[in-house]
Amino acid sequence: DRPLTLIAGPCQLESRDHALMLAEQVQKACVAEGAGFIFKGSFDKANRTSLSGKRGIGMDEGLRILADVRDALGCPVITDVHTEAQCATVGEVVDVLQIPAFLCRQTDLLLAAGKTGRAINIKKGQFLAPWDMTNVAAKLASTGNENIMLCERGTSFGYNTLVADMRSLPTMARTGYPVVMDATHSVQQPGGQGGSSGGQREFAPVMARAAVALGVAAVFIETHEDPDNAPSDGPNMIPVDQMPALIADLMAFDRLAKAHPLTV
Amino acid sequence: DRPLTLIAGPCQLESRDHALMLAEQVQKACVAEGAGFIFKGSFDKANRTSLSGKRGIGMDEGLRILADVRDALGCPVITDVHTEAQCATVGEVVDVLQIPAFLCRQTDLLLAAGKTGRAINIKKGQFLAPWDMTNVAAKLASTGNENIMLCERGTSFGYNTLVADMRSLPTMARTGYPVVMDATHSVQQPGGQGGSSGGQREFAPVMARAAVALGVAAVFIETHEDPDNAPSDGPNMIPVDQMPALIADLMAFDRLAKAHPLTV
Amino acid sequence: DRPLTLIAGPCQLESRDHALMLAEQVQKACVAEGAGFIFKGSFDKANRTSLSGKRGIGMDEGLRILADVRDALGCPVITDVHTEAQCATVGEVVDVLQIPAFLCRQTDLLLAAGKTGRAINIKKGQFLAPWDMTNVAAKLASTGNENIMLCERGTSFGYNTLVADMRSLPTMARTGYPVVMDATHSVQQPGGQGGSSGGQREFAPVMARAAVALGVAAVFIETHEDPDNAPSDGPNMIPVDQMPALIADLMAFDRLAKAHPLTV
Amino acid sequence: DRPLTLIAGPCQLESRDHALMLAEQVQKACVAEGAGFIFKGSFDKANRTSLSGKRGIGMDEGLRILADVRDALGCPVITDVHTEAQCATVGEVVDVLQIPAFLCRQTDLLLAAGKTGRAINIKKGQFLAPWDMTNVAAKLASTGNENIMLCERGTSFGYNTLVADMRSLPTMARTGYPVVMDATHSVQQPGGQGGSSGGQREFAPVMARAAVALGVAAVFIETHEDPDNAPSDGPNMIPVDQMPALIADLMAFDRLAKAHPLTV
Repeated sequence: DRPLTLIAGPCQLESRDHALMLAEQVQKACVAEGAGFIFKGSFDKANRTSLSGKRGIGMDEGLRILADVRDALGCPVITDVHTEAQCATVGEVVDVLQIPAFLCRQTDLLLAAGKTGRAINIKKGQFLAPWDMTNVAAKLASTGNENIMLCERGTSFGYNTLVADMRSLPTMARTGYPVVMDATHSVQQPGGQGGSSGGQREFAPVMARAAVALGVAAVFIETHEDPDNAPSDGPNMIPVDQMPALIADLMAFDRLAKAHPLTV
Repeated sequence: DRPLTLIAGPCQLESRDHALMLAEQVQKACVAEGAGFIFKGSFDKANRTSLSGKRGIGMDEGLRILADVRDALGCPVITDVHTEAQCATVGEVVDVLQIPAFLCRQTDLLLAAGKTGRAINIKKGQFLAPWDMTNVAAKLASTGNENIMLCERGTSFGYNTLVADMRSLPTMARTGYPVVMDATHSVQQPGGQGGSSGGQREFAPVMARAAVALGVAAVFIETHEDPDNAPSDGPNMIPVDQMPALIADLMAFDRLAKAHPLTV
Repeated sequence: DRPLTLIAGPCQLESRDHALMLAEQVQKACVAEGAGFIFKGSFDKANRTSLSGKRGIGMDEGLRILADVRDALGCPVITDVHTEAQCATVGEVVDVLQIPAFLCRQTDLLLAAGKTGRAINIKKGQFLAPWDMTNVAAKLASTGNENIMLCERGTSFGYNTLVADMRSLPTMARTGYPVVMDATHSVQQPGGQGGSSGGQREFAPVMARAAVALGVAAVFIETHEDPDNAPSDGPNMIPVDQMPALIADLMAFDRLAKAHPLTV
Repeated sequence: DRPLTLIAGPCQLESRDHALMLAEQVQKACVAEGAGFIFKGSFDKANRTSLSGKRGIGMDEGLRILADVRDALGCPVITDVHTEAQCATVGEVVDVLQIPAFLCRQTDLLLAAGKTGRAINIKKGQFLAPWDMTNVAAKLASTGNENIMLCERGTSFGYNTLVADMRSLPTMARTGYPVVMDATHSVQQPGGQGGSSGGQREFAPVMARAAVALGVAAVFIETHEDPDNAPSDGPNMIPVDQMPALIADLMAFDRLAKAHPLTV
């Protein structure tokens, strides 16, 4: 019943100035509309479609940028981890660790993330049913860390396409953990451009609004000032200048949804 | 931008009194909330999972009941047709003819339905992409009848399960025709009980609300006073005593959605 | 344990000479390799993707051609029926009636087909699980006609694509009815070319060989002397000059498979 | 065109004696039929459905057992790696490193595996199209190691189910790398038993035979003397006493397939 949180930022961290520029714009829109805000940025893209895809700025530089955003704007920050070894270091800097979808069943990574004591956002694997996330969350909770978010980001649907099943949101909510809708990755077309992933940016607001109407705790949206030239996930990112209107739209539905709770 | 219409009624027409009882209850709730209402009832279930499934009351008796509901309540009525031969006769009585999903590519049925001049609600086949409905609608429109509605009712997703892809709604809306969300069939589990279909009634309001938030013209919901003992589709029908609250809920989202049009 | 039967011919009947030309070529190859042969040709394509798709030569002319092929070559012939009304007439001419996949749950069509006493080949709907065909076959068998074949032709797999699940073949074989593999439609890409279906002709021999290795009773293959200019299903038909080599290849695997029965 | 290789062994390494017992039985059957043999056993199950699933014997003990099997029987051995750090150590002992399906896009793991100079068997992710494996293999080949095998193990098909698409085998073969069919995991039902995965053991020989008929280089089969009591993947493992007959069956089809190469 708390207002919607936006988890937003670029797919990849590109530079300190770039991160601050995007974070400021999104934060301003969130504040104006009463939404929560967590800044998202990745320091490494560890599973690009092909080797030629840009990997990222690296952990050290990435964590410095995230710390700077946090200090400058006073907002929590989130980034994804890919190995057990990264968890402790990343956990010293960020407020939320994110488990990538492909890695959501890797027990050691979940345990190491849980042991940081930080909040954890687990992306549901494209190969998992919503109810399978109960087992995933239980691995994490075994560390004593119950600060868990479960995130829908689409399910395999034939080749090179995903579908976002709205039943997933109330199903995962039955666990009692907050549910996040990843509106930009659920419209990704994995490998859809041969050497990189395609996407259907135009449907991200559709996914976001449907999920918000169902009362999700947070929406995850990747954004960029020039998605078509972004180093990754351009086809599904939202231009940052469209974010204020989108956030205003989502908050209108969030207020209604929180006043009309829907449980299954 | 017009208020939401509810297309609602039992899966099968059972008797005149039964139809009137359900129609009155739903109509009352629709009127109270400012929703449109079309009464739905089938006179024949032509494609039951197994031969032992109850077929229905028959066309003559069914059309008499539909005419009586229409006369008694002043509401439009809709029923499904399965052969070319039925179209003209049915078209003399009902306001809207419905093309079943399995039959949505049968050219002769579409043409015969179109020639009645009545409005036509075409259910999208479980085997079709949303954009394929452009070709389906064009078959119908070739008769000069542009009074067409396109209806999402779920897409095959593995065996014995459907998934409702929310991208389908704005995709079909690009045709310019009104889009309908079938909230009860999209949570059907075809053949899921061996000799009959299962369903997940609890998710029908989830599908309905998500679709309404996206601005659909109508929601299709099957309802019954005792779904567990209904002759067909019990597992996914909504108990009629829950309809007023559901309709009120949907209308709140409809007002917001119509004030915030979302086009793709 | 009887040798493989080829059900083969053009998608559409085009003319008497055309049908005889194709039938002779395929029959010759079947005889040379010890395969059975049933000539297939459709007189009407009742569910084309779009209205502009060619419908066919019509029932009267089509049945005359099929009768001529049968008389001239002494081979059984098969064609598909789309309405109850067609069944009796078609049944007077052909040896096998075929139920199209989209129509495989239409009870009245199944009953009318069964009552002809002819053999019936039922295509499994793209929306059905293999075990659901038990109910479909039972509808037919209720007429006293147990001369039934069950045919795999692919299952919906995302949008505009099918997948052929090899588990389907032994699963349907559990019914005791002969199982047919439709090698050309299972590589169809429904609606994949916008206004018509695409296909992956190159994979048809893959599907056929895998199925034959599992011991199916028959393989269904559409063929044409010039698939790229055929009025329908060109993208997945096999050029008729490739049929002798394909049939020889399949019969080698059929002999081995029939010597090594595989039951599940 | 070389004879089929069996990659076989238990899901988990349980003890030295257990591994030797299984390896001897399968090797004997392979030798008798002229098949190649690689012994497979995992030292860690890093992505169990739930935390309560048995993890495994550990890397040190596991590698000792694999070395003992190799020395005692003179057969190559394969095991899976889950982190970059494991690759060099594992590469000192085994002949083939295996990349798990969930991890097949993790660039650093692929590069570390490639740098060992050992052969690498990459399982295709359940979320990937066959053609996407070109990019995956290219990551590996960038290390100068072209000793690559590509393995089909099923694709997500709705929830808790996989489907094995036979088109995948010739599609992956276009890369020029040997293709492996994982007959036991492709009939897995992931998460199908709530806290663990189910499986359809009875269909593993179906998948294996269909793939062998298409000319694959190797078949991967997990086996156990008592699958129902195995610590993992019991529902889809083949009882070891059924392996000789299965191998004989597959070799009969392999000889025919290698004499009739099928390229797409």
